[in-house]
Amino acid sequence: MTTLDIKRIDWASLDGQGRFDALARPSRRSERDVQDVVSGIFEQVALSGGLAVTQFAERIDGFKPRRIAITPEAVAAARDALPPADTRALRVAAENVRVFHQATKPEDTAFVETTPGVKSKLVWRPIGAAGIYVPGGTAPLFSSLLMQAIPAEVAGVTTRVVVTPPAKDGSVHPAMILAAAEANLDAIWLIGGAQAIAALTYGAVLDDGEIPACDKLFGPGNAYVAEAKRYAAALPNGPSVDMPAGPSELLVIADRFCDPEIAAADLLSQAEHDADAQVILVCERAATIDAILAEVEEQLTTLPRADIARASLSEARAILVSDMAEACAVSNLYGPEHLAIQAEDAEALVASIRAAGAVFVGRWAAETLGDYAAGPSHVLPTDGGARTLGGITTASFMTSMSVQTVTEAGAERLGPIAARLARLEGLEAHARAADLRSVA
Amino acid sequence: MTTLDIKRIDWASLDGQGRFDALARPSRRSERDVQDVVSGIFEQVALSGGLAVTQFAERIDGFKPRRIAITPEAVAAARDALPPADTRALRVAAENVRVFHQATKPEDTAFVETTPGVKSKLVWRPIGAAGIYVPGGTAPLFSSLLMQAIPAEVAGVTTRVVVTPPAKDGSVHPAMILAAAEANLDAIWLIGGAQAIAALTYGAVLDDGEIPACDKLFGPGNAYVAEAKRYAAALPNGPSVDMPAGPSELLVIADRFCDPEIAAADLLSQAEHDADAQVILVCERAATIDAILAEVEEQLTTLPRADIARASLSEARAILVSDMAEACAVSNLYGPEHLAIQAEDAEALVASIRAAGAVFVGRWAAETLGDYAAGPSHVLPTDGGARTLGGITTASFMTSMSVQTVTEAGAERLGPIAARLARLEGLEAHARAADLRSVA
Repeated sequence: MTTLDIKRIDWASLDGQGRFDALARPSRRSERDVQDVVSGIFEQVALSGGLAVTQFAERIDGFKPRRIAITPEAVAAARDALPPADTRALRVAAENVRVFHQATKPEDTAFVETTPGVKSKLVWRPIGAAGIYVPGGTAPLFSSLLMQAIPAEVAGVTTRVVVTPPAKDGSVHPAMILAAAEANLDAIWLIGGAQAIAALTYGAVLDDGEIPACDKLFGPGNAYVAEAKRYAAALPNGPSVDMPAGPSELLVIADRFCDPEIAAADLLSQAEHDADAQVILVCERAATIDAILAEVEEQLTTLPRADIARASLSEARAILVSDMAEACAVSNLYGPEHLAIQAEDAEALVASIRAAGAVFVGRWAAETLGDYAAGPSHVLPTDGGARTLGGITTASFMTSMSVQTVTEAGAERLGPIAARLARLEGLEAHARAADLRSVA
Repeated sequence: MTTLDIKRIDWASLDGQGRFDALARPSRRSERDVQDVVSGIFEQVALSGGLAVTQFAERIDGFKPRRIAITPEAVAAARDALPPADTRALRVAAENVRVFHQATKPEDTAFVETTPGVKSKLVWRPIGAAGIYVPGGTAPLFSSLLMQAIPAEVAGVTTRVVVTPPAKDGSVHPAMILAAAEANLDAIWLIGGAQAIAALTYGAVLDDGEIPACDKLFGPGNAYVAEAKRYAAALPNGPSVDMPAGPSELLVIADRFCDPEIAAADLLSQAEHDADAQVILVCERAATIDAILAEVEEQLTTLPRADIARASLSEARAILVSDMAEACAVSNLYGPEHLAIQAEDAEALVASIRAAGAVFVGRWAAETLGDYAAGPSHVLPTDGGARTLGGITTASFMTSMSVQTVTEAGAERLGPIAARLARLEGLEAHARAADLRSVA
């Protein structure tokens, strides 16, 4: 067995540039190749629609796009194919996601009267059509269906189009059917990759029916999917997108009172995602780092996905800091997708965290619980996006607008002020539109 | 005087493609040229920092970047340079913007307990450094300073960097100084264009001090500024941006009871912005359209910016619909930046509006009031962005994250469920991280 060689960093020894470098995400595969493939797909689909989508799907997924109707029969068959405990677990997860999103749905504000007779508020509306990508890859990630389609439903989105790659044999995993049923979807489409994103962007008439053009695209995916979302968002009149999606990330802040076995298990759960997954440990004591890394090594030996985890850990970093305040500062600089705080005063430290997708507080809060069943969506910003972007919430599937109402008396009061400012900006027609309402 | 020739469209006569075309935004100036200029500027600034910023500013703005400190002396001088009524109007506008944004600032949600012992909430944090662009152009748009810097302050952003182009003679308008003072800014930078956005992206050490690299960039601007924001947002580790910003837009929904003089004044206030400004009238009666367009023609004769308005109106459209429900549907398809509803039952129609940046309800609610002083920010999505994006609010200057807390009992209950789902996805390390907390 090769020994792990996780990079250790003494934060105090670094200058500004060194600290910046220590937290840099590694650069990834040749982006130019990916861009060329994606733009080729989009150009073809823009030109010949569903025909091109079908051809790319056959070539890349191995199958033409299939619409899977979520009928009672399909659901019964899927249920029969799984242990009853799996079906029950899926239901609990779906319910928790639903409850959390119902409770945190944004509400219209009250009217705010800034001048007597001038009242404004912010109101929320669901977006029109949401395109939702659910990654396949080595396993069917039905949890990503729950974590997107249920918040969209709670938001009130009427058109939810879910796409996901077919399995190697062209089939769909029964858990995906059950997840779709829990999310009250009529159907899901078996199609993956950039061709799926192109179909959601332009709309596509396919053998099994029509994929409508969507107003906003959601979901994680591989480098092609990520680039396709970027491409779509840059199109004139193109859809908007939820967030850029890169490899998954976990930063663990641990103090001397942490349980090294638990910290190690969390780091490994992140590392097994894929070889690009980012794992960072920030700790106030060298001996604790030693203990956690020894546990990582130990637990790694029996992991089925040890090779993937090992590849990911080759880019991992263990950072020694002087105290927990500095640990939080390091985490804020990095802006992790997931942050676990395994420290005696974990709850108090949350106040110091400014940039993270999701924060797991204390030893019992495994990221795994949040990944599947605690309630908040697990679709979160990567690549430091957490510095300015939150994860998916019901608000992601809605838009806000201001509504401004003015009475005659309000116009009389505020009109002259607005007109004066308009003239100061040289905008006479603006001023006159105000004058008309306020000058008797 | 040439007669206006505003395009009239009978909605009922159009098929689907015709309707799509009728609402299409006109394509704009050669994007390739703009892209080349912007990428050239960014490449130079990435390479040689403040030196390049200074050189581009001298070449394009005509002056090197200047830091204007907002000192009591500067404010007193600015106040002396303006009529007292202007200073008072500016103060009222600033106060209204502040009051509205304080009242509508997002709050942390309560903890939601989805499983006994498993509690999550969404919490909000201000972003780190906000770069705020305030357009100059034909007039100093100090109102755009208020509409961004005050929401940022209310959000709790500690680093607000405001940039704005110098006037032709290198000076800054006194109203800009007063607006900066109302927004409690220490300083503003006189620098415009793509070079300003590049400075905010990379940070720049300049003769007058340092512009820090910003986490998120805000604000409207010309085609170069818009392209620069796109460029910055696409950089690996680059800042995020508020929204794409195109030419300003107003759609007026009017019924037979509207005041044609007022509807016309609103359309003209939009048209005077710039030649690319988008103006659309949607009305249920041809005679009302006639009356409004006659008023437009009449009022145009005495407008100082008539040439600009005329150019904009050459792309305007007057759309005849069968009833007010269809008017709302047309507006939702277009997704206007600004929507004015001048109809008898304007308030009731708001419920049918799904996509607009700001909605002005009824005859007294001039867009001008909202542009300057009603309270909500006037920085709003254009180009149909309103279908999925809101305008600037305090939330634009904040980010949300989920905080998840779990007790030992909570882990015991939910751990086995999460572990089961993790194994169903083939993620054994995830399952073990849950097991460690729940299996005695």
